[in-house]
Amino acid sequence: MSSNSYDSGRLNLPFVGISTFGKRPYQGDWSAIAADVAVLGAPFDFGTQFRAGARFGPRAIREASTLFSFGHGGAYDHEDDATYLGPDVSIVDIGDADIVHTDTETSHANIEKGVRAILDAGALPVVLGGDHSVNIPCIRAYEGRGPIHILQIDAHLDFVDVRHGVRHGHGNPMRRAAEKEYVSGITALGIRNVSSTAKDGYDAARKMGDDILSVRQVRKLGTEGVLDRIPKDARIYVTLDIDGFCPSIAPGTGTPSHGGFLYYEVLEILQAVANRHEVVGMDLVEVAPDYDHSGSTQILAAQVLLNFLGFIFHARSQRG
Amino acid sequence: MSSNSYDSGRLNLPFVGISTFGKRPYQGDWSAIAADVAVLGAPFDFGTQFRAGARFGPRAIREASTLFSFGHGGAYDHEDDATYLGPDVSIVDIGDADIVHTDTETSHANIEKGVRAILDAGALPVVLGGDHSVNIPCIRAYEGRGPIHILQIDAHLDFVDVRHGVRHGHGNPMRRAAEKEYVSGITALGIRNVSSTAKDGYDAARKMGDDILSVRQVRKLGTEGVLDRIPKDARIYVTLDIDGFCPSIAPGTGTPSHGGFLYYEVLEILQAVANRHEVVGMDLVEVAPDYDHSGSTQILAAQVLLNFLGFIFHARSQRG
Amino acid sequence: MSSNSYDSGRLNLPFVGISTFGKRPYQGDWSAIAADVAVLGAPFDFGTQFRAGARFGPRAIREASTLFSFGHGGAYDHEDDATYLGPDVSIVDIGDADIVHTDTETSHANIEKGVRAILDAGALPVVLGGDHSVNIPCIRAYEGRGPIHILQIDAHLDFVDVRHGVRHGHGNPMRRAAEKEYVSGITALGIRNVSSTAKDGYDAARKMGDDILSVRQVRKLGTEGVLDRIPKDARIYVTLDIDGFCPSIAPGTGTPSHGGFLYYEVLEILQAVANRHEVVGMDLVEVAPDYDHSGSTQILAAQVLLNFLGFIFHARSQRG
Amino acid sequence: MSSNSYDSGRLNLPFVGISTFGKRPYQGDWSAIAADVAVLGAPFDFGTQFRAGARFGPRAIREASTLFSFGHGGAYDHEDDATYLGPDVSIVDIGDADIVHTDTETSHANIEKGVRAILDAGALPVVLGGDHSVNIPCIRAYEGRGPIHILQIDAHLDFVDVRHGVRHGHGNPMRRAAEKEYVSGITALGIRNVSSTAKDGYDAARKMGDDILSVRQVRKLGTEGVLDRIPKDARIYVTLDIDGFCPSIAPGTGTPSHGGFLYYEVLEILQAVANRHEVVGMDLVEVAPDYDHSGSTQILAAQVLLNFLGFIFHARSQRG
Amino acid sequence: MSSNSYDSGRLNLPFVGISTFGKRPYQGDWSAIAADVAVLGAPFDFGTQFRAGARFGPRAIREASTLFSFGHGGAYDHEDDATYLGPDVSIVDIGDADIVHTDTETSHANIEKGVRAILDAGALPVVLGGDHSVNIPCIRAYEGRGPIHILQIDAHLDFVDVRHGVRHGHGNPMRRAAEKEYVSGITALGIRNVSSTAKDGYDAARKMGDDILSVRQVRKLGTEGVLDRIPKDARIYVTLDIDGFCPSIAPGTGTPSHGGFLYYEVLEILQAVANRHEVVGMDLVEVAPDYDHSGSTQILAAQVLLNFLGFIFHARSQRG
Amino acid sequence: MSSNSYDSGRLNLPFVGISTFGKRPYQGDWSAIAADVAVLGAPFDFGTQFRAGARFGPRAIREASTLFSFGHGGAYDHEDDATYLGPDVSIVDIGDADIVHTDTETSHANIEKGVRAILDAGALPVVLGGDHSVNIPCIRAYEGRGPIHILQIDAHLDFVDVRHGVRHGHGNPMRRAAEKEYVSGITALGIRNVSSTAKDGYDAARKMGDDILSVRQVRKLGTEGVLDRIPKDARIYVTLDIDGFCPSIAPGTGTPSHGGFLYYEVLEILQAVANRHEVVGMDLVEVAPDYDHSGSTQILAAQVLLNFLGFIFHARSQRG
Repeated sequence: MSSNSYDSGRLNLPFVGISTFGKRPYQGDWSAIAADVAVLGAPFDFGTQFRAGARFGPRAIREASTLFSFGHGGAYDHEDDATYLGPDVSIVDIGDADIVHTDTETSHANIEKGVRAILDAGALPVVLGGDHSVNIPCIRAYEGRGPIHILQIDAHLDFVDVRHGVRHGHGNPMRRAAEKEYVSGITALGIRNVSSTAKDGYDAARKMGDDILSVRQVRKLGTEGVLDRIPKDARIYVTLDIDGFCPSIAPGTGTPSHGGFLYYEVLEILQAVANRHEVVGMDLVEVAPDYDHSGSTQILAAQVLLNFLGFIFHARSQRG
Repeated sequence: MSSNSYDSGRLNLPFVGISTFGKRPYQGDWSAIAADVAVLGAPFDFGTQFRAGARFGPRAIREASTLFSFGHGGAYDHEDDATYLGPDVSIVDIGDADIVHTDTETSHANIEKGVRAILDAGALPVVLGGDHSVNIPCIRAYEGRGPIHILQIDAHLDFVDVRHGVRHGHGNPMRRAAEKEYVSGITALGIRNVSSTAKDGYDAARKMGDDILSVRQVRKLGTEGVLDRIPKDARIYVTLDIDGFCPSIAPGTGTPSHGGFLYYEVLEILQAVANRHEVVGMDLVEVAPDYDHSGSTQILAAQVLLNFLGFIFHARSQRG
Repeated sequence: MSSNSYDSGRLNLPFVGISTFGKRPYQGDWSAIAADVAVLGAPFDFGTQFRAGARFGPRAIREASTLFSFGHGGAYDHEDDATYLGPDVSIVDIGDADIVHTDTETSHANIEKGVRAILDAGALPVVLGGDHSVNIPCIRAYEGRGPIHILQIDAHLDFVDVRHGVRHGHGNPMRRAAEKEYVSGITALGIRNVSSTAKDGYDAARKMGDDILSVRQVRKLGTEGVLDRIPKDARIYVTLDIDGFCPSIAPGTGTPSHGGFLYYEVLEILQAVANRHEVVGMDLVEVAPDYDHSGSTQILAAQVLLNFLGFIFHARSQRG
Repeated sequence: MSSNSYDSGRLNLPFVGISTFGKRPYQGDWSAIAADVAVLGAPFDFGTQFRAGARFGPRAIREASTLFSFGHGGAYDHEDDATYLGPDVSIVDIGDADIVHTDTETSHANIEKGVRAILDAGALPVVLGGDHSVNIPCIRAYEGRGPIHILQIDAHLDFVDVRHGVRHGHGNPMRRAAEKEYVSGITALGIRNVSSTAKDGYDAARKMGDDILSVRQVRKLGTEGVLDRIPKDARIYVTLDIDGFCPSIAPGTGTPSHGGFLYYEVLEILQAVANRHEVVGMDLVEVAPDYDHSGSTQILAAQVLLNFLGFIFHARSQRG
Repeated sequence: MSSNSYDSGRLNLPFVGISTFGKRPYQGDWSAIAADVAVLGAPFDFGTQFRAGARFGPRAIREASTLFSFGHGGAYDHEDDATYLGPDVSIVDIGDADIVHTDTETSHANIEKGVRAILDAGALPVVLGGDHSVNIPCIRAYEGRGPIHILQIDAHLDFVDVRHGVRHGHGNPMRRAAEKEYVSGITALGIRNVSSTAKDGYDAARKMGDDILSVRQVRKLGTEGVLDRIPKDARIYVTLDIDGFCPSIAPGTGTPSHGGFLYYEVLEILQAVANRHEVVGMDLVEVAPDYDHSGSTQILAAQVLLNFLGFIFHARSQRG
Repeated sequence: MSSNSYDSGRLNLPFVGISTFGKRPYQGDWSAIAADVAVLGAPFDFGTQFRAGARFGPRAIREASTLFSFGHGGAYDHEDDATYLGPDVSIVDIGDADIVHTDTETSHANIEKGVRAILDAGALPVVLGGDHSVNIPCIRAYEGRGPIHILQIDAHLDFVDVRHGVRHGHGNPMRRAAEKEYVSGITALGIRNVSSTAKDGYDAARKMGDDILSVRQVRKLGTEGVLDRIPKDARIYVTLDIDGFCPSIAPGTGTPSHGGFLYYEVLEILQAVANRHEVVGMDLVEVAPDYDHSGSTQILAAQVLLNFLGFIFHARSQRG
């Protein structure tokens, strides 16, 4: 029996239709979220220190996600011989947090409100940035829902405490997270080269429980080796800065850094995480689509998110 | 008393939120359209003879339309001292017609179905192309609802009968329209330079009731002079090919032609049409956004459509 | 006797050399400004409501300005038979105000500090935005140096009082200016279509002394007619939002609006202003270069600024 | 004795001259093809399900091929210490198949006609797409000239039977090929992630003799391992969808999929195929140049084709 | 009786086929030119003082010219009710002059050789630049074929004598032309703003017979007024620098200057020139396509050239 | 004690301020260079055989280098646990060599003059191209300062002797270098595929002491293996053509060639060179930024240069 939508309904080609995430239903009423996954846009980019433009990340990722929306009854993966995101997994797009120009604190508060609404509904939050500072309100929303362990994939450590009064820019989120008692630890993958975090930030990070690995160190360890460094039974929140990837596949971002991860390196880590751990939320940030006219960056973001969600719910179903 | 949405609700900046047309509600159930205006995407571009890409016109126009969505209780125009599209005018976005790759006839039939649904609901159809061939199914939907007079704004005459068997490409729509007995006439503005229509097409067009004016001829006549050539009491369907405009403001299109209309030249004609005539429908076609990274073309499309809709309903309300 | 630099020195072609404004000397010590004109970058864009990117306006305008730097001993204009910006006019580039991400108030304060330094040095301030909110600290710097009359060239009225707490975004500057007792009036040219200012903003503006003219109204009045509406003897501060121009020549901006001014329309008004009035400062804002890969927008900005400066000092020298 | 063209003739730099494939002679008379290789453009893209634009693939690949045209008497490769495509290998460009907008069947028939003309002339067909549906008429042209084995390099399986009546879109070619009795088998390399082929398509493919390998599986097997899975003595037709490559080097395509092949992975397989098998034809499809302003994608296409042709004729000459 | 090519032959849509100018035949043997018009590419751009890239002008203009190639038996213009470039006018594309990198003199000599070959064959030369320095060898080729009067359409005067030894850059051509005894005069239209020519260059130009008019002066004079300034019976050579046009329609050029001509302003002057004068040759220079991803600039170049050629031969036939 | 600049001074974010290399001081007086490193732009691109545009390389690399300028007191690298380019290393930007359009020899002489000035001041020259021909005057400046060994990283051998009289184009530099008696040898890494050097050039190169390795050969050898082929105690000059890298990370270049180096492959070789050898100078050439709107290419150039400089001075300090 077919569960796809094209045999009986529309063909619904990828380029056709309104761009919600994965062409899933839009739920504008945040008190009525009823789904396994809820996707929230966080189009905030005043926290950037080089190029802005991540405010258009949510729209771009949504549009790119339609490329993977062929109306099949789930996404069949021939390598895994598995069907991901079948009709049993419900996803809704709840639109964007209300962003207020010039006002970082209010904008962040509105993002937090959205994540709290998703968590209150018992759904898995997927937040589309926006710059990496949007991770700050995301993590705040987990207050009282810990402990969580953060898996950060990123080129930059983002562990600046405060500089010229700035505590909530895109160079600060991991420091802010590490300060929370319900954040049990951070595993940072892909960290390399110069960033807004100086040496004292690295020292502080290590002291506060941040396990920092470069791309080359991750390659040497392998997926298994990396996973072994994450505490067993840790409930994982993934924050994926698209600049953790190599600029060759993610040029559309504000502060690109060469030498980043290739596609399968990240995908395989995420699949392993999904298999071994409970994943309690995720954000994907720093997609600035106007710097990539080929669309590769937003396609990467959508492809990673859809696959990761598939892995998570497949693992859940396997666990029973 | 304020009718805007930001005093009590969200600020809802233009860059925030899902991209429906004008951020108006999405109505996916075509049997439940209840609005003054219904917007339908027709992302079909297999009818093009040079550059394709108009399939992304609907998405691009929708996104550009958010630039004009500040949540005011209507759009105040200080030149006219009038507020357009206030809360009394309801608009819905019904998504896109189902397009079937390689299959022109089925795709066209699906567009026609959408326009018929809008007309059946008593709403004003606004169709976002897609290439100009999507006008063919639009006009078909008016069968039994005539007579209508077509106001075409375009660089090209689009009056090819049949060539190598092609009757439904983007060079044919006006010929197809002229063949309908419920199409009482065509006024074609902006026609200039070489196109796929040859001399015999021009001869046929004139014989079949097409009033052909170039940009320079329109300029010489002025808005009033142009309006005087449209039969009084004609019920007007507007088909606006974005290449009727000058490539300076509409470079994102498949077959640009220099020497086109500037913004106010078209806007003032549309305003006069709204004031003098019943407007029964419209399509805006040939926006190919990937050829214009500045976004000017789709912003033009959105700006023209929103203003024209404002004029139409303002005139209706004035007429009482 | 030749006053150019290439007969005895370098050829110094436009594409050669560091990009300061007009290839003029860089003066990083703000206490040592000694010039007729000082150019300050204000790369702040957290005040935008649609596309960001104006933070790269200063760098882009500086680079574009090198196109007009051929090392002649002044810019000869054959239409006016005059040589502008000869060796008697000294210009320095003082770099950028220090911008602090996430922090609007500190960033604005730093801009104000730069403009005050220029004014203290007796030089004419030329501020390169950044979004239009940078006009707010610019005007603040004139406290105690009034009265000044503001000539605004813009698509949008920018007269929002406060909305969701925002008082210093790019929709607010003219309201903030109008509140100053040393601002004697505002003449706003080019205002058209929907903007973040709603009807009540227009009403307030008019009540507070804002003379609002659309592009079409300006065209009807002509340069003389427009100038006649500016009070005689007014000391003029010009704030030029690049979106006052038509998107055909200024696509690289955050919130383009069709139907804007063409080049000579603005240039001739500026020349007339320079001839009749004392010009006490200027800002040129909203150039977002990454949306215009042709570079036309930043070339326009540089060309307008260099010509306007030429007119100002030519008029000064004529006045003796 | 020199066989290059610059010692006695023109320097003929890459950027100089008309863009035929490799700057080889144009032969517009399809009944007079007299060459070892004949290149045919197939600028058809109505079969695409996401982004169009592959209609400009042939022109873009031709222009990019001029980068490798320095007028040497053959292409010397220092790694292989071999000279490829010397004066003994004659190549002609026979222009494009006649494409009829809106009409898939006629367009495909015209492509088939071109390939048949090449085969009738005893030349090796090289077809430049166009979308992957152009492979359908290519394969048809081999009727009576089998058996052939298809080597497919691609991200997507393209094994949809029929959906909403579509049998000849870019998701169908391998199914259509597998139905031919003169197609002895298919080896599909690079297949990954979601595509228009659903699980039942994979099942059918395997049943019909399709050997499906992902990028990771190919990497694990190595070139030798992959070659071992192709039947000995198979006469090979290569269909190379540019999206088989990683979007990092081939962003200019309609439906990019991350995780694709890098350059040498494909090149070494093609070299091994040339050495072990008779190659009877090839198509390279889905280059959509307007999505890659750097030109990398079309340069990749030209570089792969020229090298592959070099390998084929070098191997032929070695075999004697 | 039909003279088009699609009734009996191919449909030959604009996007199909090899890109020669207007899809006309390629004639690589310069001793065998037999046509009314011969088109030569001159892809030289080492003479530029800001952005290079005009070396790709010839290829871009050729490709853009295919947009106007529908296979009709001539181009019917409904405004003029005339058919231009019918089967009686033969055009060939003779490819490009051989350009030698780093070597200006040899490259220029090769361009001169091409123009001489065209003139020797009795055909009308149409040279596609390249930067404006390519006009220098073009004019040299007319030695012994004068007198000629040059009609220059340009933003810049290009009348630099010598600076740092440079006599053959893109700032020098009109000075070089004025030095020829067979050049009877120059009419320069569109000259405005700063250029590499300083005041002394303007003085010299006027002294040497250059009639210099700005865009605004041309507008004031009107087409007739401009034509009246060109000596009766002058045999006209047209050199059209694309930057004579407004950057709104010609952004793809090296040294854009705002305030340029719009399309019909130039077209009507060219039509009047064709009607009143013998046109003996033309070049169109400074199209740098990589700065205009919309393609507008090269489309403008092709559209102007094809129309101008149409006017010339129509006028010739009218004169009998 | 903190040595950064933000604790007591400006925050000085990357997007703020004039673009000198690394935001280091500008020294326009070449007789007053007093620094460890001096950066010279060489914006010359008339030596290119395909796409030009490298004249904007220096400006682009300078701007990109600001991304790595956070005002820290040195760049901390957590992988090496080292701080590079601390306050003990002084760098100045001395602007660009004076380039004369159309005149290769004068332009090259001016570049040589700049490098000599740097060497005379005892600083390390870092030259930003421009095309690869700018290496010719760079090497000339080392006359009397040898012996030097050249480490070339490049896709192309650049060993053409003379062709059509060209001896100083971007295909000739290594041949010119090999002719110098003070050049003791060349190690060429990354050489692959077709280039302007033909087989006889390879033969000559090998005979004249050029050790040629392809990307795949370098990979097989590993960093150590490569270093072992460079003579011990050789004083190294590095010439880095950005097209030595894979087009995936360096698309913004004139003659891209697929199959190039990835980031760490080059970085690790440069680090090893810095550790084992005295580095006496470097140039980085062929960045043509207008072909890469993402900015990846110039970011790569800046990132490699800043890291390499860090390695060199770290190694010097280690050596004492």
